[in-house]
Amino acid sequence: MTIAFPEPQAAVLAKRDAIIAGLQAIVPGEGVITALDERRAFETDALTSYRRVPMVVVLPETTEQVSAILKLCNREGVPVVARGAGTSLAGGAIPQEDAVVLGIAKMNRVLETNFADRTMRVQSGITNLAISGEVAHEGFFYAPDPSSQLACTIAGNVAMNSGGAHCLKYGVTANNILGLKLVTIEGEIVEIGGAALDSPGYDLIGLMVGSEGQLGVVTEVTVRILRQAEGARPVLFGFDEIGQAGRTVADIIGAGIIPVAIEYMDREAIAICEAFAHAGYPLDVEAMLIIEVEGSEAEMEAMLARIVEIARAHQVKVIKESKSAIETAAIWKGRKSAFGATGRVADYICMDGTIPTGRLPEVLAGIDRIVKGYGLRVANVFHAGDGNLHPLVMFNVNDPAEQVKAEHAGEDILRLCVEVGGCLTGEHGVGIEKRDLMREQFSDTDLLQQTRIKSALDPQWLLNPAKVFPLDAPKEAASSTPAKAAA
Amino acid sequence: MTIAFPEPQAAVLAKRDAIIAGLQAIVPGEGVITALDERRAFETDALTSYRRVPMVVVLPETTEQVSAILKLCNREGVPVVARGAGTSLAGGAIPQEDAVVLGIAKMNRVLETNFADRTMRVQSGITNLAISGEVAHEGFFYAPDPSSQLACTIAGNVAMNSGGAHCLKYGVTANNILGLKLVTIEGEIVEIGGAALDSPGYDLIGLMVGSEGQLGVVTEVTVRILRQAEGARPVLFGFDEIGQAGRTVADIIGAGIIPVAIEYMDREAIAICEAFAHAGYPLDVEAMLIIEVEGSEAEMEAMLARIVEIARAHQVKVIKESKSAIETAAIWKGRKSAFGATGRVADYICMDGTIPTGRLPEVLAGIDRIVKGYGLRVANVFHAGDGNLHPLVMFNVNDPAEQVKAEHAGEDILRLCVEVGGCLTGEHGVGIEKRDLMREQFSDTDLLQQTRIKSALDPQWLLNPAKVFPLDAPKEAASSTPAKAAA
Repeated sequence: MTIAFPEPQAAVLAKRDAIIAGLQAIVPGEGVITALDERRAFETDALTSYRRVPMVVVLPETTEQVSAILKLCNREGVPVVARGAGTSLAGGAIPQEDAVVLGIAKMNRVLETNFADRTMRVQSGITNLAISGEVAHEGFFYAPDPSSQLACTIAGNVAMNSGGAHCLKYGVTANNILGLKLVTIEGEIVEIGGAALDSPGYDLIGLMVGSEGQLGVVTEVTVRILRQAEGARPVLFGFDEIGQAGRTVADIIGAGIIPVAIEYMDREAIAICEAFAHAGYPLDVEAMLIIEVEGSEAEMEAMLARIVEIARAHQVKVIKESKSAIETAAIWKGRKSAFGATGRVADYICMDGTIPTGRLPEVLAGIDRIVKGYGLRVANVFHAGDGNLHPLVMFNVNDPAEQVKAEHAGEDILRLCVEVGGCLTGEHGVGIEKRDLMREQFSDTDLLQQTRIKSALDPQWLLNPAKVFPLDAPKEAASSTPAKAAA
Repeated sequence: MTIAFPEPQAAVLAKRDAIIAGLQAIVPGEGVITALDERRAFETDALTSYRRVPMVVVLPETTEQVSAILKLCNREGVPVVARGAGTSLAGGAIPQEDAVVLGIAKMNRVLETNFADRTMRVQSGITNLAISGEVAHEGFFYAPDPSSQLACTIAGNVAMNSGGAHCLKYGVTANNILGLKLVTIEGEIVEIGGAALDSPGYDLIGLMVGSEGQLGVVTEVTVRILRQAEGARPVLFGFDEIGQAGRTVADIIGAGIIPVAIEYMDREAIAICEAFAHAGYPLDVEAMLIIEVEGSEAEMEAMLARIVEIARAHQVKVIKESKSAIETAAIWKGRKSAFGATGRVADYICMDGTIPTGRLPEVLAGIDRIVKGYGLRVANVFHAGDGNLHPLVMFNVNDPAEQVKAEHAGEDILRLCVEVGGCLTGEHGVGIEKRDLMREQFSDTDLLQQTRIKSALDPQWLLNPAKVFPLDAPKEAASSTPAKAAA
């Protein structure tokens, strides 16, 4: 995987001092970062193999400041990379050398909480976990729970349409967002959606969620909050064969049973995570499912009974229920630390494909075949219930040939996902990492439909450019003379 | 409510013969309808107070024919109104005199059914109920169930993002569509989405669903099919005061309980529907909820117990469980025939607003006050669980003054919905009926963001024009010289 970065535009770099002065006039004090060593903190994200130091970083505190910053950048033709916490796994937040990084992290206040309507309006720089923290005392929570939820911002969640372990039941970010306030590249402040079920006209929330910071900068988010279930209980199911686990998942979903989460780990992942979290995972199995049910005691019992029956039909070897809140916390700590724990024992690239759940058994076998074909190891740990795979292909970063092999293996895995009717990202986004793989999934005609939207809302392609689309994706020339006209 | 139709373009009418010849070359035989009396069948939809006879009607049978038709219309500058079954309640399918009506109803085949992945690919002219009918023998169904499901097409459901009584649990059309094949006004055939959870790049499915036929003509749809629950049981709850019913709904939702459906009917609606369907509705109450639970016997019992407890806390007067499949069918027949049954006793306009569920009690009181203020009657029958209201404001169509009053009352109700943080359509769309009301919800800046999308995908505004947006909504001039250009 070789990622080409566009050459920084000399014309923009030449204006650096004037741009900095302009930004300082908008955000006074320490909100504009110019020193090289401080700018370095913004040079990459969680896809750390690529880095570019941005021209300048600005940290606004109000929507009005964001508007003024974007007006300035639009007028001067300066690329803008909006950034939440920088936890993107696909390079979505990696800047470029002629870009202004617009960091949203200072805008982290709760603006309004409405328990009766089950909504909450927050500034977009608030972290995912802080939203739930704010309403936990009343028994509410915000559902999507990416593993990085302690750090990642709701702005980043909106940009990537983030998921998480509990999205099987509650849906991803798109299903839990009711309204957005965003700023266009022209500095216009736009409100879309609101606190109700639907919105007339085009579904701009649907369009904005997952658009990876390319269509506008989101400054406020109205989220749906949900009441915590009466109880919740994760249960571990261990199997001797990965096919048995895959078929169990397919049959649970096929039977219309929707637990809160169905997470999958293979032997490699179990060993790594157990060593880190001491969660009580069974070590003598080839595959493990963490299935969480919730509700009243009677509801949990009823659902578990059906799940156990299906797992038994597929020769489940170990069934282990959490017996306490401490055990539950350890089980989830193990799962949510999987990427970090794997990083302790090997370098890896984390893939993020989705497949129809019915194809799970054959895709698991296919991943195994692909990785072994390159002489590598893989730890599979992922959201099995909704078909969102995260194979971690391990390699030695000090062996360049092995790194290339790992990258090829990763691409083969994503191609396999697309082949069986799935797609090449589930929740991490396209970013720069999968930009060129978009052609595996889309024709030029398909891509043109998407780039038309980008051109309509950002004619100069200034917002997070060089992401999502192959650099040579088809585009139409944007109107150079926008003019108001009545129908 | 006075709806202005744009003047038919003389230049288009003058080309009528050539356009008909062109269409006949694309769709041979009886697929092109030119006789006035036959065209009249396409002059309106379920918002029957407005009618315009289209210039010509064409009924293609393949995506390629749709492509050729749109290329012809794009070249000649002819408006195109795509039409499913014409059941739109907001005028979304009403044509104009210089338009080609592109009827999709002949394209009604099932292309692929995949039970393991729980997906089905269909041509877009298939009716909503036929999709469920196709998979019922295997115990599956397609979830969104508009009351018009016997007639309405999935193409129309996609255009309007249709809901239905059972959407409380299963979501609306947008939540149940995985992929679309559509044709742009330029005749390009585009595939978006697929059979998996997410799709990389922008969420064009989100954008297309609910775009009321203005961004492309959908010819194929990949839907999610779900396994039927083990059992389902509607229960009737009767209350002496509408506030009690409203608070019961708010508390059920607030408690995080999600039944399959929570439908609300007031005294007027109960009387009308009972007379029609003999469903056993209680006639001595001011408000009734139909709450349906589903699952295993144990799951239904557990959920019902919690619901009954909440209803009792709000002085429920009558609780009546369905005891048989026949009773269940009658209960739903009554609810789903509500519009038709009301039409037997009075003329009415059907509103379609949404509100945050916590505001239900005060909005019900507000509707009552508004309608009484105009000296009119209202039958309230709607999807209470997700806050989607359908007040039917009754009037005498032979009394023009009363009709005007009813229209004013309707507008006041929608304004009330927007005021409490809701919106002016839930599932019927904007169409022509609510075009001008869009300004109640959106600023010019907000509207411009939407019209930019329209202009990007349909620069001449040929697809279902004069719908959704006020005729004088702000627009930017589209690029007149599209050209391919690399980034």
